Amino acid sequence: MIRFNCDYSEGAHPRIMELLAQTNMEQTAGYGEDPYCIRAAELIRRKCACKELGIQFTVGGTQVNSIVIAAALRPHQGAVCADTGHINIHESGAVEATGHKVLALPGRNGKITADQIQTACDEHFKDAAHEHMVQPGMVYLSLSTEMGTIYSRRELTEISEVCRRNDVLLYVDGARLGYGLCAEGCDLDLPVLAKLCDAFTIGGTKVGALFGEALVLRNDALKKDFRYILKQRGGMLAKGRLLGIQFLALLEEDLYFDIAARADRQAMQIRRACAEKGWNFLSDSPTNQQFPILPDMALNLLKKNYEVSDCGRIDKNHSAVRFCTSWATRDEDVKRLVRNIQTL
Amino acid sequence: MIRFNCDYSEGAHPRIMELLAQTNMEQTAGYGEDPYCIRAAELIRRKCACKELGIQFTVGGTQVNSIVIAAALRPHQGAVCADTGHINIHESGAVEATGHKVLALPGRNGKITADQIQTACDEHFKDAAHEHMVQPGMVYLSLSTEMGTIYSRRELTEISEVCRRNDVLLYVDGARLGYGLCAEGCDLDLPVLAKLCDAFTIGGTKVGALFGEALVLRNDALKKDFRYILKQRGGMLAKGRLLGIQFLALLEEDLYFDIAARADRQAMQIRRACAEKGWNFLSDSPTNQQFPILPDMALNLLKKNYEVSDCGRIDKNHSAVRFCTSWATRDEDVKRLVRNIQTL
Amino acid sequence: MIRFNCDYSEGAHPRIMELLAQTNMEQTAGYGEDPYCIRAAELIRRKCACKELGIQFTVGGTQVNSIVIAAALRPHQGAVCADTGHINIHESGAVEATGHKVLALPGRNGKITADQIQTACDEHFKDAAHEHMVQPGMVYLSLSTEMGTIYSRRELTEISEVCRRNDVLLYVDGARLGYGLCAEGCDLDLPVLAKLCDAFTIGGTKVGALFGEALVLRNDALKKDFRYILKQRGGMLAKGRLLGIQFLALLEEDLYFDIAARADRQAMQIRRACAEKGWNFLSDSPTNQQFPILPDMALNLLKKNYEVSDCGRIDKNHSAVRFCTSWATRDEDVKRLVRNIQTL
Amino acid sequence: MIRFNCDYSEGAHPRIMELLAQTNMEQTAGYGEDPYCIRAAELIRRKCACKELGIQFTVGGTQVNSIVIAAALRPHQGAVCADTGHINIHESGAVEATGHKVLALPGRNGKITADQIQTACDEHFKDAAHEHMVQPGMVYLSLSTEMGTIYSRRELTEISEVCRRNDVLLYVDGARLGYGLCAEGCDLDLPVLAKLCDAFTIGGTKVGALFGEALVLRNDALKKDFRYILKQRGGMLAKGRLLGIQFLALLEEDLYFDIAARADRQAMQIRRACAEKGWNFLSDSPTNQQFPILPDMALNLLKKNYEVSDCGRIDKNHSAVRFCTSWATRDEDVKRLVRNIQTL
Repeated sequence: MIRFNCDYSEGAHPRIMELLAQTNMEQTAGYGEDPYCIRAAELIRRKCACKELGIQFTVGGTQVNSIVIAAALRPHQGAVCADTGHINIHESGAVEATGHKVLALPGRNGKITADQIQTACDEHFKDAAHEHMVQPGMVYLSLSTEMGTIYSRRELTEISEVCRRNDVLLYVDGARLGYGLCAEGCDLDLPVLAKLCDAFTIGGTKVGALFGEALVLRNDALKKDFRYILKQRGGMLAKGRLLGIQFLALLEEDLYFDIAARADRQAMQIRRACAEKGWNFLSDSPTNQQFPILPDMALNLLKKNYEVSDCGRIDKNHSAVRFCTSWATRDEDVKRLVRNIQTL
Repeated sequence: MIRFNCDYSEGAHPRIMELLAQTNMEQTAGYGEDPYCIRAAELIRRKCACKELGIQFTVGGTQVNSIVIAAALRPHQGAVCADTGHINIHESGAVEATGHKVLALPGRNGKITADQIQTACDEHFKDAAHEHMVQPGMVYLSLSTEMGTIYSRRELTEISEVCRRNDVLLYVDGARLGYGLCAEGCDLDLPVLAKLCDAFTIGGTKVGALFGEALVLRNDALKKDFRYILKQRGGMLAKGRLLGIQFLALLEEDLYFDIAARADRQAMQIRRACAEKGWNFLSDSPTNQQFPILPDMALNLLKKNYEVSDCGRIDKNHSAVRFCTSWATRDEDVKRLVRNIQTL
Repeated sequence: MIRFNCDYSEGAHPRIMELLAQTNMEQTAGYGEDPYCIRAAELIRRKCACKELGIQFTVGGTQVNSIVIAAALRPHQGAVCADTGHINIHESGAVEATGHKVLALPGRNGKITADQIQTACDEHFKDAAHEHMVQPGMVYLSLSTEMGTIYSRRELTEISEVCRRNDVLLYVDGARLGYGLCAEGCDLDLPVLAKLCDAFTIGGTKVGALFGEALVLRNDALKKDFRYILKQRGGMLAKGRLLGIQFLALLEEDLYFDIAARADRQAMQIRRACAEKGWNFLSDSPTNQQFPILPDMALNLLKKNYEVSDCGRIDKNHSAVRFCTSWATRDEDVKRLVRNIQTL
Repeated sequence: MIRFNCDYSEGAHPRIMELLAQTNMEQTAGYGEDPYCIRAAELIRRKCACKELGIQFTVGGTQVNSIVIAAALRPHQGAVCADTGHINIHESGAVEATGHKVLALPGRNGKITADQIQTACDEHFKDAAHEHMVQPGMVYLSLSTEMGTIYSRRELTEISEVCRRNDVLLYVDGARLGYGLCAEGCDLDLPVLAKLCDAFTIGGTKVGALFGEALVLRNDALKKDFRYILKQRGGMLAKGRLLGIQFLALLEEDLYFDIAARADRQAMQIRRACAEKGWNFLSDSPTNQQFPILPDMALNLLKKNYEVSDCGRIDKNHSAVRFCTSWATRDEDVKRLVRNIQTL
């Protein structure tokens, strides 16, 4: 069985494993105050072209999402997101556990628009009873989204403007940021993100690291005392350098983007093979997640050799699935899969 | 201006005011441990035909809803309700503030069905990733609903069975219980509710009291230590007897049901007047809340003399509003309104 | 049995009952947006000599304390208070239920000092691991305290200065504010409180009202959106005017202070009677709560006719109790008690 | 500079690094459902001599403590611990952030006794106002404690009995369990812990792992649905196998105990050197943490070559510090330190 079901089936990119082995017996300060975290933070600031950014490293995605939201919102505020958003569906109520409602809007291709956000704000404040309702306090986007799609620079700029006009924070969950930024046609980059967002993450877990998300904070109110909240919510690693070391390995020579671009290309090969069979897709994804809708017979044959993620029945004879590539996907496995699809 | 916009525009029924005045200078124990609360609790048990019920008195509806949910659910569980449910829309995120997600299902006429609940449970547990999602732990209904509708005995029985089969608690928010139980065609009563629900409230605030909701607890796990949580969440009144006295006044001679039935009849007069004008309704309500859809011109004329609640624009020329009657609505005001509608 | 065990054994002062009866059938807007609340808020601003104060009315003390703390603190901050503080002991963990630690300091006579607060801040920020500890974010005092004592103007001024210097909010729980401000020797008044505190309450429940605490907010950040949080935490009464009406009745002609002063004088008669017997006291209280330490034999005799609150065993033969007077205490009952003490 | 300031200055034991490297490119299921976690769990059950134990792996100590407490307690319950307990002091209010109060008892040598716990329960339930106070719901111990001390089998047995008698859960934080169990004179072992506790952890972070705590659950109510809560609170690692692999490496050939025993022996050499200088200690620790009280002049000399943790000023000329050894401490560094102490 070859796993195409997710992008976290293996360990870490070999360069990370090397650097971890090499530094293993060094003695450093704990809790992210070591030289590696300091260097990695400096490197991220440079790549984001902004010296004032606050950089924190955390272990996981659910964790960093709920910590940012807990740190950002007052008790009566909620986080606006697409109904397919990770925080709305797949985090076991982590946001609600911090006391905040997720305000889900109907997404298209996993995305929401500046207009939808403006309308949500207008509807809230125009309602005479708005004090009896949850106030939009933050917009949560993911890049790439749970549907593999990406926001364009224009879309993100408009959303950012709407957020600032309405005094709402903008946070981008970049668990798959590499795959998003390296997708064909993506016109976003780190400096643009750092300008448009109050906070965003550079996801490591799914893009080459053993684990780890780098959190980039632009908003000054969010930066203040953030490490207390990180500690309180279990996001501060005793041997914090493990995170600094991994992000150094990923970012120093742009390994992060090289491996993400490669995975995106592999995914597009799978996409093309599916499209050539005449299969439709749940979304127009240019990234490492592809969501074809297959005849059940074809799916059953593929499942003999490949693990995929089920995404629900579409009609009597068709189902949707997710194929994921990652930094670790082997070209030969992609070729074999493509051949298998072609000869179904 | 005559207020038909809600059912809490006045103080309390005169009989309550009398009893409060009459007992005012008595000295009693605090926090609901006085003779009046004890008698009122006993009376409720008798009217519910069940000696084992736990009875608590709290001040308000948002309060009692969030306290019951906080007391009932484990951290990973959520409360299933109709998308129009009060806890989903109009409590400023009170449930989320206790750490729990509201799991909204699309309602019809403000109601959800046993089938929908079963499907929600099935979809949850059949999902391989269900541990990453919020588990349905409770069903929240309201009676009458936010749309003025009521559940039939059969509907509630089916919901109760689905809940028990799936190990999910059933809680009925009875902020308008009187208006619901007294509606024409309602085949529910207190003993049935006490059998089918794990917990429900008998709402006082909107049915004759200054304030106050009586909470009826059938579920033993919920009863245990409930008063700690009541105190913790601000639901325990120092002069608790104020609640006991009010519920005694309301229930001893069935004043509660008499005044609710009268308000329902008044509402049906308004409904008929609207129907005779050919107006449609947002819901098929037999209770004290009516939601006609009016031509804007008619609405503007009515608004010169009556306060109503806006319920949104329906099309270019029509809007929906809510007319509420209550225990305090005067027959002459209803007559005048009906005449005004007829002569529009 | 005559109750001296607490100050909430009766209903409300007759003038309140009259005003409630008189306004009972008026129709007003709900949720504190009625003319009575608006007038009462205006009156409180005038009495506090500050037009910019935010005024909110809530039902109970535990409720208002936890709402203010939830609204004021960020997730990593705690509320500093005396170890005897109400929030530390007698609110079933209400503050912790909002996510915040109570940082208890050893009190003397139920009070803490500016020096203690400064030291707590210093120790926090000087600790290299302070990010791993709860940051002092607010100081909670009560006036009068749980031990019946009061802060002097100098003490409160120093505390206020320490708080502002350390960027820590100052909140005074005035559940017994009337008894505090009217005590012999008290040199505080409403305008001084309004200047020194970020927030404080004027307690109604224990000083003549059926229930109700008026919350005075000076801090602009706290004022913003406060009503959302009030609603969310169950502190917003549907028939909010009940609170406005009561505070109007209490404050319009200084009834609040008249009845509190009288109760303080009654308490001092009891104190003197105890002192003349040679009994010591748990605290030097000039207010309506007195904590004598009695021989058990004397206590047992008194308990035949009077309810008092037990405050623990002091030694083999002595126990401490609390005697409370209130706005409702009858002079003849005080006289009888004093006589009984004298003739023990 | 040689670091004796804590036990998490280095990476992981080489055997762990090897096993991680060796398995790096394998594809496995995520979230702890891989073969390594399954085998590691099985191994722990065997070492605890109990097949029914629930085993979960989490990343960090603050995290696992707050997750266990959130999963175990109802809203009105708190966790009893020594005032020096990690959850009381050094977790930035993590427990309170889950809504629960830490009920601190005065510790001796970092420990509390069965008698203290019984008294706390008695005082709670005998107080007429106990519903207004936080109910003891769990006892939190650490082994070894923050002061390096250990509980004897008799002490832990008595505590366990008191807990069961009072319907209070017993949880042992084993962040330094290896150092505790391997200390000279310790008569506890894994099977005993698994019998006496409702839950305990086997700490990896400080005993050879990169990170990771194995959580052992005996209590059935706690086991149920625990993984939801783990996910919700950020404790579920996507590449969960990293935890399974590390605990396999640590436990398969008792590496965990070998390296802990060695660190304890090193610490005792340091202790003896201090004792021979006539220095006192903050606690009677037989484990890897030693807390000597030094003349400031001696401390200043030592600080030129060694990092230690400051533990506060004792008197005008003396301060307390902490020396930590760990699995990574080199014998030559201990020898050098001992020599340096001797020749001060």
